[in-house]
Amino acid sequence: MNFKVRPATREDCREVSRMIMELAVYEKMPDQVKISHEELERDGFCQNPFFQCLVAEVPEEQKSTEGFTVVGYALYFYTYSTWEGRSVYLEDLYVMPEFRGKGIGKGLLCKVAEVGKEKECVRLNLSVLNWNTPSRDFYLAKGAQDLTVSEGWHFIRFDGQSLDNLVSAAPKE
Amino acid sequence: MNFKVRPATREDCREVSRMIMELAVYEKMPDQVKISHEELERDGFCQNPFFQCLVAEVPEEQKSTEGFTVVGYALYFYTYSTWEGRSVYLEDLYVMPEFRGKGIGKGLLCKVAEVGKEKECVRLNLSVLNWNTPSRDFYLAKGAQDLTVSEGWHFIRFDGQSLDNLVSAAPKE
Repeated sequence: MNFKVRPATREDCREVSRMIMELAVYEKMPDQVKISHEELERDGFCQNPFFQCLVAEVPEEQKSTEGFTVVGYALYFYTYSTWEGRSVYLEDLYVMPEFRGKGIGKGLLCKVAEVGKEKECVRLNLSVLNWNTPSRDFYLAKGAQDLTVSEGWHFIRFDGQSLDNLVSAAPKE
Repeated sequence: MNFKVRPATREDCREVSRMIMELAVYEKMPDQVKISHEELERDGFCQNPFFQCLVAEVPEEQKSTEGFTVVGYALYFYTYSTWEGRSVYLEDLYVMPEFRGKGIGKGLLCKVAEVGKEKECVRLNLSVLNWNTPSRDFYLAKGAQDLTVSEGWHFIRFDGQSLDNLVSAAPKE
C-alpha cells in the first residue's frame, strides 16, 4: 500500500479529532474525549505548541470506505529526563482498522523516532493499558522495554478536585 | 521554616545538577546520570525549552551544613492528553534530607499545580517506583490516583539500540 507520513497541519485537526474519537471508541471510553478540533488547533499550532503530530495519508484512489485519505496519526511531545536529557513521548498512535497490517503504524512510530533523534532525544516513551495485548506486543516486538514490569514504575495523576486542592495550597509570594 | 519557591534561572543549573545527583544516589542509581549543568542550561533556557524548573530557597542563616541555600527543586514540562488537553508532568521533586518534613516538597508540588493551572492544564502526572513507598504515600495522601493500579497503565520505553532500529526503519520522503 502507498502511504505518506507527513507533519499534520492546522487543516488536519478535524481529521485528527475524528480519529481521536475512533481510538477512544476502540478503547471503550468515547465519553472521555473532552477536546475538539478547535482545541487541537489552538494547542498544537501556537508558539510553544503543547504537542506535535504526524499523519499518514493514502492516495485518493485508496481512500477509506467512508472517503477518508488521512488514515492514521501519531501525536507526541518532547519531555525531559534529568538522567539522560531530551526525550520524546508518544501519546497516541492510531491507524484506521481497514488500513492495519500494512506497515502504516510502524511507519508513524519510526518517523516519530527519527524526528526525535534529529532533536537529539535519547528515549521514546509511551504508555499502554495492560489489557491492550496487541499494542504491547507491537512495541515489545520492536525492542521496547516494559518499565512497569522491569523496574516497577507506577503512573500517578492529580486531576479535578485533587488538582484544585494543590493549587489552593500553593505558597504565595 | 522560611523558604521561597521561585522559577529556576540559568545560574541555578549547577545547584539543580547537584540535587539531581543527590536524588539519583538516594535512588541507588548515581551512574545513570549522564547530563551535566551545561546540558540543563542548554535544554531548559532556550527557545521552546524542553523543561521548566522551580527551586526552593532558604535564607542564608538557614543554609545547609554544607552551605547550600537552594535546597529543593521541581522539574516539570507540559504534555498533552488527546482526551482532556493540556497537562503538566512532574519529572522530579526533590528536597535535601535535612530540610524534609517542613512543607518544602508540598510547596514545590503545589506551585507546579498552580503554574499548570494558569496554563489551563487539567492534569498533573508523574511516575514513582513501586518500592518508593514514602513518595507514593505522599502523593496518594494528597488525592492522587495510582493509574497503574486502577487502570493498568504500563510504561514503555525505546532507547539505545531499540530506538536506533526505529530510526533506521523510518519511511523516506
